[in-house]
Amino acid sequence: MSLLNTINSPSDLRNLSRTQLPALADELRNFVIESVSKTGGHLSSNLGTVELTIALHYVFNTPEDRLVWDVGHQTYPHKILTGRRDQMHSLRQLNGISGFPRRSESEYDTFGTAHSSTSISAALGMALAARTKGESRHAVAIIGDGSMTAGMAFEAMNNAGVYDDINMLVVLNDNDMSISPPVGALNRYLARLMSGKFYAAARNVGKSVLPQPMLELARKFEEHAKGMIVPATMFEEFGFNYIGPIDGHDLESLIPTLQNIKNLKGPQFLHVVTKKGQGYKLAEADPILYHGPGKFNPAEGIKPAATPAKKTYTQVFGEWLCDMAAADEKLIGITPAMREGSGMVEFEQRFPKRYYDVGIAEQHSVTFAAGMATEGLKPVVAIYSTFLQRAYDQLIHDVALQNLDVTFALDRAGLVGADGATHAGNYDLAYLRCIPNMVIMAPADENECRQMLTTAYHYPGPAAVRYPRGAGIGKVTEATLTDLVIGKADLLRQGSKVAILAFGSMVHPALKAAENLDATVVNMRFVKPLDIEMIKDIANRHDNIVTIEEGCTMGGAGSAVAEALTEIGLAKPVLMLGLPDKFVDHGDPALLLAQCGLNAEGIELSIRKRFG
Amino acid sequence: MSLLNTINSPSDLRNLSRTQLPALADELRNFVIESVSKTGGHLSSNLGTVELTIALHYVFNTPEDRLVWDVGHQTYPHKILTGRRDQMHSLRQLNGISGFPRRSESEYDTFGTAHSSTSISAALGMALAARTKGESRHAVAIIGDGSMTAGMAFEAMNNAGVYDDINMLVVLNDNDMSISPPVGALNRYLARLMSGKFYAAARNVGKSVLPQPMLELARKFEEHAKGMIVPATMFEEFGFNYIGPIDGHDLESLIPTLQNIKNLKGPQFLHVVTKKGQGYKLAEADPILYHGPGKFNPAEGIKPAATPAKKTYTQVFGEWLCDMAAADEKLIGITPAMREGSGMVEFEQRFPKRYYDVGIAEQHSVTFAAGMATEGLKPVVAIYSTFLQRAYDQLIHDVALQNLDVTFALDRAGLVGADGATHAGNYDLAYLRCIPNMVIMAPADENECRQMLTTAYHYPGPAAVRYPRGAGIGKVTEATLTDLVIGKADLLRQGSKVAILAFGSMVHPALKAAENLDATVVNMRFVKPLDIEMIKDIANRHDNIVTIEEGCTMGGAGSAVAEALTEIGLAKPVLMLGLPDKFVDHGDPALLLAQCGLNAEGIELSIRKRFG
Repeated sequence: MSLLNTINSPSDLRNLSRTQLPALADELRNFVIESVSKTGGHLSSNLGTVELTIALHYVFNTPEDRLVWDVGHQTYPHKILTGRRDQMHSLRQLNGISGFPRRSESEYDTFGTAHSSTSISAALGMALAARTKGESRHAVAIIGDGSMTAGMAFEAMNNAGVYDDINMLVVLNDNDMSISPPVGALNRYLARLMSGKFYAAARNVGKSVLPQPMLELARKFEEHAKGMIVPATMFEEFGFNYIGPIDGHDLESLIPTLQNIKNLKGPQFLHVVTKKGQGYKLAEADPILYHGPGKFNPAEGIKPAATPAKKTYTQVFGEWLCDMAAADEKLIGITPAMREGSGMVEFEQRFPKRYYDVGIAEQHSVTFAAGMATEGLKPVVAIYSTFLQRAYDQLIHDVALQNLDVTFALDRAGLVGADGATHAGNYDLAYLRCIPNMVIMAPADENECRQMLTTAYHYPGPAAVRYPRGAGIGKVTEATLTDLVIGKADLLRQGSKVAILAFGSMVHPALKAAENLDATVVNMRFVKPLDIEMIKDIANRHDNIVTIEEGCTMGGAGSAVAEALTEIGLAKPVLMLGLPDKFVDHGDPALLLAQCGLNAEGIELSIRKRFG
Repeated sequence: MSLLNTINSPSDLRNLSRTQLPALADELRNFVIESVSKTGGHLSSNLGTVELTIALHYVFNTPEDRLVWDVGHQTYPHKILTGRRDQMHSLRQLNGISGFPRRSESEYDTFGTAHSSTSISAALGMALAARTKGESRHAVAIIGDGSMTAGMAFEAMNNAGVYDDINMLVVLNDNDMSISPPVGALNRYLARLMSGKFYAAARNVGKSVLPQPMLELARKFEEHAKGMIVPATMFEEFGFNYIGPIDGHDLESLIPTLQNIKNLKGPQFLHVVTKKGQGYKLAEADPILYHGPGKFNPAEGIKPAATPAKKTYTQVFGEWLCDMAAADEKLIGITPAMREGSGMVEFEQRFPKRYYDVGIAEQHSVTFAAGMATEGLKPVVAIYSTFLQRAYDQLIHDVALQNLDVTFALDRAGLVGADGATHAGNYDLAYLRCIPNMVIMAPADENECRQMLTTAYHYPGPAAVRYPRGAGIGKVTEATLTDLVIGKADLLRQGSKVAILAFGSMVHPALKAAENLDATVVNMRFVKPLDIEMIKDIANRHDNIVTIEEGCTMGGAGSAVAEALTEIGLAKPVLMLGLPDKFVDHGDPALLLAQCGLNAEGIELSIRKRFG
């Protein structure tokens, strides 16, 4: 690590000679592999951006010039080169550095990302701000081909393409995949662009932008292809100057091309081809496996884990989906590019004709499901709680308003751990329960999750089941597909004085806390419709009421209970426990929950503090 | 009206001969003008779709084949031809027919629309459902060029383009405008397509699809243009078969083209050029004025209204925006294609360099603003409450999480009247207040709206002011730019026993109701942060508390008060008044509010009923 150790900021990097950069890239790549193997985190994508990151910081005057990394899970090389090499051991851990760019962490992190497809919008804002302020800085968005499928990226391209006087560059990092395999017409289009590679490069760039060796090649192609019809690329039709595709692992292509682009005015578009997992054979061979590994031995690679004792909720969903699909041929499974994350690999294999990966396109996924539902099919949209925020209007306007039969399986509800605040699903109960016609459930354990999915599926309107990331309590799931009674809570423990009305993942910690308190515990099951009879009965028989949920207390499930009590006219003291009104950082989920007072000890403590 | 009167369903239309259709189109156009002049409603867009509507119902076997109208305000001809001619007099009125397609209204309304850019997603869902069920029906999405700029349309195109075996057609109704003038690169692109019109048509269609006269023309062009480079259209790059552009007012082009397309498999894209306001000179000359007129005399056209006694909140915002922009050069005004609706016409004229219409692109608008804010500018995003639902994730993830200084001016909050449930802004208080870092205000009158906008603007983080559609109570706005103290409520009336904590537009009805009840009234001003001291004081001094807001009670402002009371430990009976947990139909706003019990009489009644 002789070179890398000398780089404490990009200005150190810019003091290196061009000939030193390949060696630096090797060191950087090895550092990433070593580092991620010890902390876990994203790997394939970061191995793919080593050279691109070096080239961007080498050519652009960061942080004066702005780099905006789309999604941002590919920014480990960027973090390492911008003064955070010695903090990489704390990556994604409590009080450690984030796995995504973060403005509060470094002046080189110009924009916090983590959800896809925001970078062009943000960079355009920066570029136009520079124009407004009379500054000549550059704004660069680096976006993957997967992220380009989300509509937001097109909205930004459509807007950016008309400004001829901005210093803006979009780098399309084309690695032919998002987390799941690529889908959609755009992907096919990029493949076609690739096949006409060098010729297109020569034609579209203006000769001055291309480095010498490519230019030669391009000339040869041009003679060869005389008279051939050369279509303008889609990106030019959006008003961008399209350059590429070029090899994103070749510093001798990247650096001169970027240097030339830096001198061009107006919206520039550089198409760079990289390989996820580049330079680490195992990751190259299986970039999906190495997308976001835990700790592993780099020499041996990821070993098949011993079958864990407990299923994750994602697995519970995946099994249920297959079982329900086998029972009802009307079932359609829809994912916005999260086949693996949502547990749909087996479903796709067994029911390929009923599986739809619509790309990173949350808005479309929900309205597409609504369209299916109007024809009598029964779509199940599997989507992370945090990503459903992207399709909120579609859920309201296209599903709930028309009272269509769509089932939402919301994974990663509540705190998510290492991914941090950007991926937490803390607001779903609040933003869903205010919408008419919705049925909303949160399971206390794995088997109840299965029952709730069945219930949501059979309910002939919009229904959502929200379940946490990771494993539950280890409850075995029954093979049957059993419905729950809609709107009925479950009294689990009869105590005295204090009653805890618990939702979802908080039911079991509440039960534990109740032992010492001799408190009553109700598994509320339904956030909407609430079991008003149960609440009335509980309120009549207890002095004090506690609500608890793994979600924001503001407007959440506890708030619904408070509303119900006021409506009944039973004014009882209520302690509302849940997630605080602030963004909760990354870290071990158990630690985070404890910090928020949402483990058994914390619950007991809060209740004693309030009610003695 | 000899022909039109015989058309009670599209099957009647299909019994006409082709030669009768132009006369029918004339009658239909006149009927639309007469009808809208009496009820108010959308005009320009409906005059533009007369021939297209006739052609679609003539060629396709509706309702067996599915027509999905994007946005849907251009469906009056469709409504008239599908059995609702005699109900047009009740358009947009209480218990009358909707101004948008509606599944419950007619089997020909296959999908409820009103927010833009959903049609391709829904139609794709229908087309794939047909494939799944082995049905050969067609699904047709009709979408305007404005709606094509929203990313969701691209998400759907990207997804649809890969299915070679579906019966799906997208009709691009290119009228060169959304409600505001067109913006963005796509618009320029469509203009370029237009200029190569007939040649492109000949090349891309396959000769069989084009009607004879166009084919002749195209052949001539082809000879002329020999050797010319013909780029594939962007839509072909998305996997669609592109046909057009053709004249959307020429039934002799439309019908044979549609008939030929009907025989083609896979995703088809027909580019139709129409003129908003077609056939009514006044509307052709000023399609924006005639976009959504009130009642008028068709012979005279819209007369400049006498200056109304009261300003609308939209005007209050528009004036404030100009005044604040004059006072602070860092102010940037951003609209997603709602220059007129949001009151930004004067701002654009006076501050063109600080005005950004980003197109129908809500998601982009918010992240774009966030990018600006990172550079120290102060963006104001003017957006309807209902459309902010489209940018919810961007507000959470790109603005609130980074605590960036973006001001949201939310127009049309609460019930909106004639546009109905699809445009109501009922959920904003609930879906915003659960988000950390947000400041949320609702003004009781026009001057307070101005003060709140000033307060939001000066607050160095994300802040929203939500105000209703239409005029307020007639309060004169002061010229000064005055801040309110953040989180401070205003005690307006001291009564006894009952205290009404009122939010925004409900403050004045509450004051009126309070007279008979001798109730205390507080103008809460802030939904977040709540004035806890005030709530505590009020709760200590009164037996009963009432909250009232023009928004959903579930999770809304009243719910926030209930939460606060439980946190303080003051268990008082609370009556929460607001909008019910159902979608409220279109109709006169005053009538709708009365139906929901949100006028002075209703408030008094509810309070007496609950608290005697």
